[in-house]
Amino acid sequence: RGTTPLFPNLNGQKPEYLMVQLKAFRDGKRTDPTMAPMAIALSEQDIADQATFYGVLKYKDPSTGGSVSRSRLS
Amino acid sequence: RGTTPLFPNLNGQKPEYLMVQLKAFRDGKRTDPTMAPMAIALSEQDIADQATFYGVLKYKDPSTGGSVSRSRLS
Repeated sequence: RGTTPLFPNLNGQKPEYLMVQLKAFRDGKRTDPTMAPMAIALSEQDIADQATFYGVLKYKDPSTGGSVSRSRLS
Repeated sequence: RGTTPLFPNLNGQKPEYLMVQLKAFRDGKRTDPTMAPMAIALSEQDIADQATFYGVLKYKDPSTGGSVSRSRLS
């Protein structure tokens, strides 16, 4: 997740923001060829769960990667 | 910036992502009542500057605030 330059880093993002954006993707108010198919079938609970999940994950600096393999080295 | 729950934390976000989204707001491909008026007059250089600016700022945990006054206390 968040591994390509065009995908935003979501770890540590605000849950309320993530919920609004996920609902916007699901409901067609925000369009994106990657996100729309993933969001279309989400329930309210799914969205709340996802938003909470990313919100509690620790931010990783995209410029330094923060990938699993890199983390394991430190 | 990033002070209300519905505004995303942009500090440390990927510049490439920010550029694409700013252009989408400017060009009407992504709609938002707050962002659209701010983005409408941005030049390509403005957008690149903004994206770089937020990209290099250090991430601040939204749950702990990270406001100026709080930082000054630590």
